[in-house]
Amino acid sequence: MTLTFYAASGSPFAWKVWLALEHKRLDYELKLLSLSAGDLRKPEYAAINPRMRVPAIVVDGGFSLYESAPILEYLQERYPEGPSLLPSDIQRRAIARRIAAEADAYFHPAASRLYRQTARREGEGDPKEIAAAKGELGEELERVERSMTEGWLVDAPSIADFAVYPMLAGLMRLGEKQPHHAMSAQFGPMTRAWMRRVEGLAYFEKCWPPHWRG
Amino acid sequence: MTLTFYAASGSPFAWKVWLALEHKRLDYELKLLSLSAGDLRKPEYAAINPRMRVPAIVVDGGFSLYESAPILEYLQERYPEGPSLLPSDIQRRAIARRIAAEADAYFHPAASRLYRQTARREGEGDPKEIAAAKGELGEELERVERSMTEGWLVDAPSIADFAVYPMLAGLMRLGEKQPHHAMSAQFGPMTRAWMRRVEGLAYFEKCWPPHWRG
Repeated sequence: MTLTFYAASGSPFAWKVWLALEHKRLDYELKLLSLSAGDLRKPEYAAINPRMRVPAIVVDGGFSLYESAPILEYLQERYPEGPSLLPSDIQRRAIARRIAAEADAYFHPAASRLYRQTARREGEGDPKEIAAAKGELGEELERVERSMTEGWLVDAPSIADFAVYPMLAGLMRLGEKQPHHAMSAQFGPMTRAWMRRVEGLAYFEKCWPPHWRG
Repeated sequence: MTLTFYAASGSPFAWKVWLALEHKRLDYELKLLSLSAGDLRKPEYAAINPRMRVPAIVVDGGFSLYESAPILEYLQERYPEGPSLLPSDIQRRAIARRIAAEADAYFHPAASRLYRQTARREGEGDPKEIAAAKGELGEELERVERSMTEGWLVDAPSIADFAVYPMLAGLMRLGEKQPHHAMSAQFGPMTRAWMRRVEGLAYFEKCWPPHWRG
């Protein structure tokens, strides 16, 4: 078996897949692409993912797959042995998929709306847009807090935790880099405790975005 | 078994689930909610889906689930007998999930961007926003056209067809109501032929958005 994993530092979707690969203890070759070097725009990568985004995987000598949620489903089906990415109970499995889908459908667009403003090279960004994005994110953080238990989002570490954590970590990091945009006060105590649990996973450090180090 | 399906006319995500329920020949009770009557804001519906959106299902006397992609996965797992929503081959199944995920992640946001402008009660909408949205939708329509075969998106009718069709039909309908926003010229011939195939499914008429009739 060969498994090549294409990622870029800081992509919450690539981070999700990375955590999943490690959780399942799979052997894979990591190809860390550089956005600034234009790696995603190269024809050889466009042949793997015509959308020229990360993550993508290539398995079994040529099958390429992109979009993080389908990648996680595929990994679980292709490599069913060992730790699972999904709960074994059918209803709990549905809830895990729902939480992961909500992160992609609601948290991510709201965060992107904020990042589009804060990433500007010049000026402060549109205050109305920033306020609207922060309002949406505040609501999402409240939902996350309300859904928290003393353990994992659904029973054991799953696609739900791997989808949600990178998005929250990205928002935390924005607050460290641009303290006037910090939303840390809106991360509830249950959410913070859960983030510490994710950060305590044996493989967590290995998947930390390389360009966030040091 | 009891299965209640909460929908609202014209929601592409509710339509997707509706096609899936019919494809699997399941017995279900349809609850058609009215946005204008405020049905989605009622506490009894918020107890089923706290996001107060459609679709949602309630099964087996109390398990409620929302978000269309997890609903389709659940339906296939809970009712594995009869016609499948997913290809049986693992790679083809991954591709079907990828196409459905792409419709949600790219086509839908681009269409929403356009609808936000065209749904204004006053004025013509922001020409820059409209042009940008149409540009994105044009690219998505090209991708759809390139991915078309003589048959279904992946082998047999699946989550891929059920996710993509309602979004394309919504865009077609906009062009009928507001001809100056028609994008029909950008629907390729393979895409049009595939839409006719979807429209030929035995259960297609039953799922047509009620408020589009007549």
